[in-house]
Amino acid sequence: MTVHVHVRVMPRPGLLDPQGQAVEHALTSLGFAGAAAVRVGKAIDFTLEAESLVAAEAMVREMCERLLANPVTEDFVIEVSS
Amino acid sequence: MTVHVHVRVMPRPGLLDPQGQAVEHALTSLGFAGAAAVRVGKAIDFTLEAESLVAAEAMVREMCERLLANPVTEDFVIEVSS
Repeated sequence: MTVHVHVRVMPRPGLLDPQGQAVEHALTSLGFAGAAAVRVGKAIDFTLEAESLVAAEAMVREMCERLLANPVTEDFVIEVSS
Repeated sequence: MTVHVHVRVMPRPGLLDPQGQAVEHALTSLGFAGAAAVRVGKAIDFTLEAESLVAAEAMVREMCERLLANPVTEDFVIEVSS
């Protein structure tokens, strides 16, 4: 089956995120008050051939641990759908 | 109310995505066969003070159109939750 995968890789809480700070300042400058705790990370979408959603998620988790995310500085969230 | 916002900003279909191609090649090199159509974009998370989820989504849509996404080259997906 073809599985659609969405991965979000975000800087870990507590780590400095200069890009997030820049976006937060820019939003405030544009008049959007009320936005806080802005964090900017990577969104990675792809399709995957797998036997099941469970198998796909396990494979994507390994992809994140080995390539897509830096386990020291980043957390990741995986969404799979058929 | 405080609204949790997730935004995904992805390169539009048909536009070249060199970062996505690089990730796809790297996944194949690592032995992850079956991954295709890899696209890499931005994930932006923040909290927002708004009167309702509907109002929050409208405000985030305007943020995307004015700052977070390039309307010529990027599409965006908004998720809001309380």
